[in-house]
Amino acid sequence: MPSYSMITKTQIKYLRSLHLKKYRDRENVYFAEGVKLVNEALSSHIPDIKMLLYTSENKQHIRTELLSHNIPSIELKQEDFQKISVLKNPQGVLLLIKRPVNPIPEISEFNDLILILDSIRDPGNLGTIIRLADWFDIRYIICSSESVDCYNPKVVQATMGAIFRVNIFYTPLTEFLSILHESGKSTIYGSTMNGENIYKKQLKTPAAIILGNEAHGISLGIHQYIDENILIPNFNNSVSRSESLNVSMSAAIICSEFRRNKV
Amino acid sequence: MPSYSMITKTQIKYLRSLHLKKYRDRENVYFAEGVKLVNEALSSHIPDIKMLLYTSENKQHIRTELLSHNIPSIELKQEDFQKISVLKNPQGVLLLIKRPVNPIPEISEFNDLILILDSIRDPGNLGTIIRLADWFDIRYIICSSESVDCYNPKVVQATMGAIFRVNIFYTPLTEFLSILHESGKSTIYGSTMNGENIYKKQLKTPAAIILGNEAHGISLGIHQYIDENILIPNFNNSVSRSESLNVSMSAAIICSEFRRNKV
Repeated sequence: MPSYSMITKTQIKYLRSLHLKKYRDRENVYFAEGVKLVNEALSSHIPDIKMLLYTSENKQHIRTELLSHNIPSIELKQEDFQKISVLKNPQGVLLLIKRPVNPIPEISEFNDLILILDSIRDPGNLGTIIRLADWFDIRYIICSSESVDCYNPKVVQATMGAIFRVNIFYTPLTEFLSILHESGKSTIYGSTMNGENIYKKQLKTPAAIILGNEAHGISLGIHQYIDENILIPNFNNSVSRSESLNVSMSAAIICSEFRRNKV
Repeated sequence: MPSYSMITKTQIKYLRSLHLKKYRDRENVYFAEGVKLVNEALSSHIPDIKMLLYTSENKQHIRTELLSHNIPSIELKQEDFQKISVLKNPQGVLLLIKRPVNPIPEISEFNDLILILDSIRDPGNLGTIIRLADWFDIRYIICSSESVDCYNPKVVQATMGAIFRVNIFYTPLTEFLSILHESGKSTIYGSTMNGENIYKKQLKTPAAIILGNEAHGISLGIHQYIDENILIPNFNNSVSRSESLNVSMSAAIICSEFRRNKV
């Protein structure tokens, strides 16, 4: 039986500190907040849920889950929960989860499609891309070390639970790409402004797709590892038109193009 | 020559009030903030720019634009500008623009592809969809009356300027769809959970694509007007997987599918 106890000021301070990457890194935990994410975490059977926090108002609703999963739990007052929450409208339920600490798999372990993210900075974009990866059965995402942390609460929210199912790694990309390139196991595609029309290309798998930073695209040092540059053409031929698509929109369309022939 | 004058408290209050739909509706204006949007508005030659506001710090940068376009302008102190701004990091430049008040065009005026949005509520989603429409050369978007206002400052921001190029109308959808349906001019597609695999379908144009609300999908009263239900299949076959794609992701993939054969 899990025990119920009231939260201390020190615990609130500790949980609040996890909004920041520095403390998440030190403690090696993150949190997932809200009914949707908590349910997704439970149904995804992630191994390391350390703690469930819920408000007294949510007690009735949460207890069944709790008992069946046997997770240690803390009951909070609404006002204390709000101090920890990152949501505008807190739903009174939150999980504290141990981050997975697996090394990057051997190249041979990747399935037919992986994503490589070069300095994606916006939490919403990364969260959306993780959600897309889950949808398109992409099991691995490799992020450059400068990319936004996937355990940032805003990223976790935007994944809508996909964070529990997609394997995400952070590593210096030049190193990773030079190994991948030398292995010859995957065609390395880069989404670039001077790429070839994606709709006219025969896309090959196994493939690795590189997506670049929101403002600067793919770093110069990485271009040398790209086998094929691809581009989603602008169908608007007016003089005044958008310069680019948002990176998560591009990701959606590119993943769709790689998968559409698989059905 | 435009005249420079300092802003009054009443003007600040007036401009702040435009954050709310009620006052935008009454005054029939909206504003576009930040260097990117101001430049996009100028280069898109939208007809009704009523006012330019800029901070003293930005004076040097803005004056050339101002003179060449002959727009009335007000110079503000940074602290006053911040009271009006909707951005986290205000860039000290903002345009007040008259909203277009065109009636919905005749069905015959639509080009080969239009979007119909049934109660999209999230400003980021609407903004992203407008940006996608611009990219995929979709000139008209018809929104249900309950949809988020496209002149909401957050929507305007998310369009990255596409708001100045795409024609957006609000109208009761059942009425509009019954006319469109009866005209037989377009195939009406609906993005639904029980649709047919979009990748296996022969997509026809002229077409109208209906996208539904973030939580509830397409309203019941509207289903009767759909000729073809389409679905982006989930490629993840695990028991635990995402239930759905975000509506703007779906929009990206659907627009791409309709356009990919046009290249």
